Amino acid sequence: MIKTITLIGAGNLATQLALALYKKGIDIVQVYSRTEQSAKILAQLVDADYTNTISKINTHTDCSVFAVSDTALPILLQQLNLSNTKAVHTAGSVAMDIFKDFTADYGVFYPLQTFSKQRKVDFSNIPICIEASNNLFAEQLITLGKTLSSSVQIINSAQREKLHLAAVFACNFTNHMYHLAGDILQDNQLSFDLLKPLIMETAQKVQHLSPKDAQTGPAVRYDKTIINHHLSLLKTAKDKQKIYSFVSDSIFENNKTK
Amino acid sequence: MIKTITLIGAGNLATQLALALYKKGIDIVQVYSRTEQSAKILAQLVDADYTNTISKINTHTDCSVFAVSDTALPILLQQLNLSNTKAVHTAGSVAMDIFKDFTADYGVFYPLQTFSKQRKVDFSNIPICIEASNNLFAEQLITLGKTLSSSVQIINSAQREKLHLAAVFACNFTNHMYHLAGDILQDNQLSFDLLKPLIMETAQKVQHLSPKDAQTGPAVRYDKTIINHHLSLLKTAKDKQKIYSFVSDSIFENNKTK
Repeated sequence: MIKTITLIGAGNLATQLALALYKKGIDIVQVYSRTEQSAKILAQLVDADYTNTISKINTHTDCSVFAVSDTALPILLQQLNLSNTKAVHTAGSVAMDIFKDFTADYGVFYPLQTFSKQRKVDFSNIPICIEASNNLFAEQLITLGKTLSSSVQIINSAQREKLHLAAVFACNFTNHMYHLAGDILQDNQLSFDLLKPLIMETAQKVQHLSPKDAQTGPAVRYDKTIINHHLSLLKTAKDKQKIYSFVSDSIFENNKTK
Repeated sequence: MIKTITLIGAGNLATQLALALYKKGIDIVQVYSRTEQSAKILAQLVDADYTNTISKINTHTDCSVFAVSDTALPILLQQLNLSNTKAVHTAGSVAMDIFKDFTADYGVFYPLQTFSKQRKVDFSNIPICIEASNNLFAEQLITLGKTLSSSVQIINSAQREKLHLAAVFACNFTNHMYHLAGDILQDNQLSFDLLKPLIMETAQKVQHLSPKDAQTGPAVRYDKTIINHHLSLLKTAKDKQKIYSFVSDSIFENNKTK
């Protein structure tokens, strides 16, 4: 059983994961961040010690959880002795084997969600994607995952990176479409509030329909009159015009067989 | 007061609008569609007559509501005598003045939402964008709008087309990002269900945060390692690769000043 954790990282994901684990009674023993203030703020929220000194990282807990950037992770691993601890990272696109020269029990604990420090996240239905170097540790990670979520999945490194790529489209790119839409409204003295019910319904629709069945609008109908009119409205916003044109073409191409 | 309506159109928007008005006690007297079967199905749902013959359209109700495609609308107007009825259309990108040679009381009743026939929509908070040729008719449309929604707005034709353009980004383009994400999962034997909580949270975040504050992921961090890795994963999917590249660049450019 994993009961005590050292948390390496104090960013968005580290913060939300620590809060969720703490709430479920997991003991976050120590928080490390290279920024002392970040480590301290998070440590106080979860009754933990904190450090910003790599040599003081406590590697004698049940599991070290690395919630740091993909570039920071290999650098940190070089500087730690992990032989006495189990270790996981929380990254979508980093292979599990990054740990293989450092400890015997290693794995991945990847919660598939978008995390911001200022927004509390309900973990109860977030897919937690688990991978482990051996079955015993996999079982322990599954048990830990199930304390947080009803959706715990075994996903290998090759699948996880595809899942992460898909998540970039479904989350980051989607959010950027909201951003571009918000710019258009702002330029025309219209409130972003007008789009909020539409944004919610668009997300809710694909909880029940496939995105293909849910699609509406000028591109899927290939309504050239509106498409050309929209492109002309964007003539002074080349960035948006380019995205409008490419995405509309892609919508049409992908829905031809509807 | 608008108590009786002739509905011209039986598509997604016409269907959901008719169901919502009918539920609020508005009398849908007749449904027209050029496809008899479509007119009949919708008419039965709202206790209306139906026709697929233009010359039989009943223009003696309180208001004729045109919920047809932007290209069908002007053709229909040429064939009808609307002098005895008030008339509105429900389109985002058609100017109100399309009616000006046909009747004195005309306007727009544009519910900003994505409609599919098979999915019932809760109108209670949908922005209903009203425009009218005179104040008296505007008041009547506002009253009608308020029977459906708490969010009734006066929006002129120039603003409405910008709003429609923004909605294409926030809804149709967003849904296409879900679609592309779903393709990636399907190609790798992963279930679209894995993304559903992420899609909901992404939409919920911008109900409270600006899209700029809500953004996460490799592009906003300008994490070249992941971006290049993702582009390489998409090397056999040029369409997705192009969208990945353009949208990532746009995210980075638009968030530089964060």
